[in-house]
Amino acid sequence: MSFDLAAYLADRRRAVDEALERYLPAKDAPPATIHEAMRYSVFAGGKRLRPILAIGGAEAVGGTMERVLPTACALELIHTYSLIHDDLPAMDDDDYRRGRLTNHKVFGEAIAILAGDALLTLAFGLLAEHASIEVVREVARAAGTFGMIGGQVVDIQSEGKSVDAETLEYIHRHKTAALIRASLVSGAMLAGASPPALTAIREAGTHLGLAFQIVDDILDVEGSLEELGKTAGKDRRKKKATYPEHFGLETSRLKAKALIEDAKAALVSLGSPAEPIRALADFIFQRKS
Amino acid sequence: MSFDLAAYLADRRRAVDEALERYLPAKDAPPATIHEAMRYSVFAGGKRLRPILAIGGAEAVGGTMERVLPTACALELIHTYSLIHDDLPAMDDDDYRRGRLTNHKVFGEAIAILAGDALLTLAFGLLAEHASIEVVREVARAAGTFGMIGGQVVDIQSEGKSVDAETLEYIHRHKTAALIRASLVSGAMLAGASPPALTAIREAGTHLGLAFQIVDDILDVEGSLEELGKTAGKDRRKKKATYPEHFGLETSRLKAKALIEDAKAALVSLGSPAEPIRALADFIFQRKS
Repeated sequence: MSFDLAAYLADRRRAVDEALERYLPAKDAPPATIHEAMRYSVFAGGKRLRPILAIGGAEAVGGTMERVLPTACALELIHTYSLIHDDLPAMDDDDYRRGRLTNHKVFGEAIAILAGDALLTLAFGLLAEHASIEVVREVARAAGTFGMIGGQVVDIQSEGKSVDAETLEYIHRHKTAALIRASLVSGAMLAGASPPALTAIREAGTHLGLAFQIVDDILDVEGSLEELGKTAGKDRRKKKATYPEHFGLETSRLKAKALIEDAKAALVSLGSPAEPIRALADFIFQRKS
Repeated sequence: MSFDLAAYLADRRRAVDEALERYLPAKDAPPATIHEAMRYSVFAGGKRLRPILAIGGAEAVGGTMERVLPTACALELIHTYSLIHDDLPAMDDDDYRRGRLTNHKVFGEAIAILAGDALLTLAFGLLAEHASIEVVREVARAAGTFGMIGGQVVDIQSEGKSVDAETLEYIHRHKTAALIRASLVSGAMLAGASPPALTAIREAGTHLGLAFQIVDDILDVEGSLEELGKTAGKDRRKKKATYPEHFGLETSRLKAKALIEDAKAALVSLGSPAEPIRALADFIFQRKS
């Protein structure tokens, strides 16, 4: 494969980090605590997968990174807010995330709740400033109760119960996959994708999103604290509904791989501009953290 | 006074409630728990002050209620989300709100956090669907760390400390007044207010918002659980920074009254279409809950 994914990821990640630096209030802007707390979690070494998918979605239909950077950042802010709230004692009660103490362990629960609220609010402010109405709608739907929040609700309600395959898929498709798909789709929308191109991107995003979460489940079983930066084996201890728990590790791996291939197949009609997304799909399957 | 405020409020409140009923997902739409939790707090007998101010802001410059109803509802959703999160154990730890158990007392902390997140997300979805980009920007700013969330942060950090008058005003202007002003301003913006009219509305909103919170402080000292629907005297027990605590009851009342008069004076140039806002200003001062 001639496409250099490592260089692509490093370049896009740098651009996203620089843009996030610009869009987040300075850490000494009053009231400083909240801005410090927001920055603590945003700059905690995330992979920037959602922003890079938004950029990839734009590039796949002839758009530029510059046009979608603010939207890409908004998606990362929404992802970060969801992690801060998920880690709270009332939710998943996690002390570590990406190898560092979680937001509430450093700033206290009240500020962590508000930092999450503030990141979500800032994200929509950014979208209003730089994206289009249809993108705001797409993101609001993916992040709301028929998307990410809905998945989180069912996830919480399923803890400690044995769930059927349908519920398991509902959780994964909503909790994680919805925002991943919206990332690809938003980028393509902003770049003026044709209806058939948008359909292809949406389909790829649907497969990719579910694959991502299945791989996440697998890594939770296999990974170490050092590699994952969060406490491995947590899903099992919290009796979370996961693919390995339900189907076993090997079947889960096969399912994820099949979804990755489906995603790549959906993109065939877009030709070589979609090469970065195809490479990202392989990366999602092969990643170790 | 010939203007019948009671009839005006009842009519607008009914229209807002009907619109909220339409915009909120049905309570049996899956996942049902979260929609039930959102509805529990939205339909808890609120005064709908922010939506009515948005409508009044539109009417004051020749606009119609219909045009601003979705935006009016979005403002109420943001207000409601902020109450749900403020009531959480990690924040103000309140068991009662408007005479009913708070959201987390009924649905648990995890769902209450998510219900707040979902209302905020839905609010921006509504704004994206029906408002204008400049209104989304106005609301995002008023609700964010340079508005409502910023005020909440300083409020929390000031608990149990004696704060100076400047900090006290900062808290009130940001925590409460910013969204009240944004409500008036959003309505006027959507109705196509001229720049001088918008300036007048913005000034009135600034005064009205601060007056509202000072009266709230006074009611917390004077009110009973029955009248307020929340636990009176709470501010004092939590050692909150309040106007009565700092200036005494009588001076606080005079300050609020002066702000109400300032708000009404700012609206003189708008003539009789601004009569509902002027009547609302008096209502804000005279209310008992």
